[in-house]
Amino acid sequence: MKKVVYLDNNATTKVAPEVFEAMRPYFTERYGNPSSMHSFGGSVAREVSAARRSLAELLGASPQEIVYTSGGTESDSTAILSALATNPGRREIVATRVEHPAVLNLCKHLARTKGYIVRWLSVDKDGMLDMNEVRNKISDETALVSVMWANNETGVIFPIDEIAEIAQEHGALMHTDAVQVVGKIPIKVSESNINFLALSGHKLHAPKGIGALYIKKGTRFSPFVIGGHQESDRRGGTENVPGIVGLGAAAALARKNLVEENTRVRQLRDRLQKALLERIPACRVNGHLERRLPNTLSIGFEYVEGEAILMRMDEKGICASSGSACTSGSLEPSHVLRAMGVPFTAVHGSIRFSLSRFSTEEEIEFVVRELPGIIEFLRSISPFGRDALSAICTVH
Amino acid sequence: MKKVVYLDNNATTKVAPEVFEAMRPYFTERYGNPSSMHSFGGSVAREVSAARRSLAELLGASPQEIVYTSGGTESDSTAILSALATNPGRREIVATRVEHPAVLNLCKHLARTKGYIVRWLSVDKDGMLDMNEVRNKISDETALVSVMWANNETGVIFPIDEIAEIAQEHGALMHTDAVQVVGKIPIKVSESNINFLALSGHKLHAPKGIGALYIKKGTRFSPFVIGGHQESDRRGGTENVPGIVGLGAAAALARKNLVEENTRVRQLRDRLQKALLERIPACRVNGHLERRLPNTLSIGFEYVEGEAILMRMDEKGICASSGSACTSGSLEPSHVLRAMGVPFTAVHGSIRFSLSRFSTEEEIEFVVRELPGIIEFLRSISPFGRDALSAICTVH
Repeated sequence: MKKVVYLDNNATTKVAPEVFEAMRPYFTERYGNPSSMHSFGGSVAREVSAARRSLAELLGASPQEIVYTSGGTESDSTAILSALATNPGRREIVATRVEHPAVLNLCKHLARTKGYIVRWLSVDKDGMLDMNEVRNKISDETALVSVMWANNETGVIFPIDEIAEIAQEHGALMHTDAVQVVGKIPIKVSESNINFLALSGHKLHAPKGIGALYIKKGTRFSPFVIGGHQESDRRGGTENVPGIVGLGAAAALARKNLVEENTRVRQLRDRLQKALLERIPACRVNGHLERRLPNTLSIGFEYVEGEAILMRMDEKGICASSGSACTSGSLEPSHVLRAMGVPFTAVHGSIRFSLSRFSTEEEIEFVVRELPGIIEFLRSISPFGRDALSAICTVH
Repeated sequence: MKKVVYLDNNATTKVAPEVFEAMRPYFTERYGNPSSMHSFGGSVAREVSAARRSLAELLGASPQEIVYTSGGTESDSTAILSALATNPGRREIVATRVEHPAVLNLCKHLARTKGYIVRWLSVDKDGMLDMNEVRNKISDETALVSVMWANNETGVIFPIDEIAEIAQEHGALMHTDAVQVVGKIPIKVSESNINFLALSGHKLHAPKGIGALYIKKGTRFSPFVIGGHQESDRRGGTENVPGIVGLGAAAALARKNLVEENTRVRQLRDRLQKALLERIPACRVNGHLERRLPNTLSIGFEYVEGEAILMRMDEKGICASSGSACTSGSLEPSHVLRAMGVPFTAVHGSIRFSLSRFSTEEEIEFVVRELPGIIEFLRSISPFGRDALSAICTVH
């Protein structure tokens, strides 16, 4: 296989080798059903409990507050639908315009098919929320406030604890899609008013197909997947044991690596950002420079198409993305960058680089070396790019 | 680890070594997101397609009719809720009393919270349906008929194609929970009127956490997990790539081993049945002897507690179950055996042995050697068992 420079960790991550080793026995050897009466199943149930404790520790939660799911999307659906089902007297949802499709599309669906009113929160040019608008839109009619902890495209971090307090003042439940922050910044849900927090294993070096939902103790709950008694009657279906064990191991690693994510990974990201801004004319960072995840860089290259950049980078083995993998395939520009009012000259040429603790200096240097030539070439073959650039370069 | 005689394959199965090998690269090497634009993700998308073709072939379906889910329970929920959402004018569900909790509990929930009327189908002492009752209960008011293909506890196989025809005559949608039959008996959904078929990977030597739903072409559909555009907009959330690849490999193996399941595995099961009936007084097979899965044996030992048998067998390393793993933990006797009218003297002492192609002659001989002594001992320490047995033995 061709050498790959993988800078698309907000889409999905490599399973850490330690995580894979932790999971491995649960496929062909310790394959018992944790709900079984025999000790072959029972010993597996104990490992599921140990994994739950590990994940709870990463979040600052208690193990009873964790429900395993199949991933971030199911966790989001569970939280949102539970909040609405247990608040039948309230018909309003407050959510940002820049939510992940897992929240965005469900909210739109609920508005269309069930008559819920969604009060959308806008973002400014830095991708930040206006807290006055937040205060104005959350009311005693609000059943649920759903705000992502950090945006998947720009990495911009929202003031979740502050928003959760406002929600609580109005008796609304607070949900946060935290798939992009878990393992990247410190979290302590016990000190927050958040009722629900969604996370996804494959965003933090656990495998695809496993996720979890934190449900604060005392929060009214209505299950989404109804069936057997698993997860204390909160989620039916045989437990995904290897996935759960993997997520537990990934959580332990995340606790250990949290400092590195915020120092070495951040430095690599900053270096990539600085070098690209220096070497490539007419490009700009999307999103607030400080209030941002340490691993994420969204950068808009004006007068060039993002898809073309991705294809050229792909030829060099560089993996990055334009927008979310969950929206790719559509030709519309990112809803996040549009909500930020990024000019159309840059919105189409925006690329997200997302690093991980597996990213290396050599990889960053490789991108810094290759990308300026790619952008220059693409602009040179686009009449629009050429003319616009020569105008800019005259001005500069 | 102690040597285990695993005869609980209707609860969950060992991941086949070939399945594990097929999955392995998708954790730490080929970990790309199939929805990504770059070829690192795109090459994974091609493997997902290949796996879909393999699974479709096992079912006699076309690949476009397969939607991946997190397991049997999610598949059941998706089918049932979709059928109701797309048939808003009809308020009745027809289901058997012996469905798995994934269907049973959802139907009860829908009756309780949404006012649906569930017309329950009873079973006779052999666990079989009365086709006159089926014809009487399915009507033009029926939105959905949900009948499992084979029962998980007794292995009794229901005449699904015949029921699907009756459903179609009344314009009702037909769903079957087929988690226990896929890989055990031949299936060709293209020749049936079934609209939905649920299956679970971990029941056929693929891992836990992956399942699928067959949706017949042309069937109206409303998604359950709403989010990104994955699975042709039918199921949001990043694809569980290792699980999907594993399920594809398991489907290929199942096709290859279908004859063995119906010859060697069946012979082993029959041998276990014959030897236990011969050597242990006062025991009886639950369920029809012929219309039954080749791997399943439910046997009621009168005047003894199933839990006690399981514990004693567990000490010898023998894994079996009383009822479904999804209902274990409750002390109520099996709803399936109660629906069949199994006498209370036998319902509590019923044990399910479920074999797989990994079961060996030696394992069966071991059970045949150990179990009579266990039953004899347990009856000897129970005053009720002793008196009842001596009465029986006098009569015999």
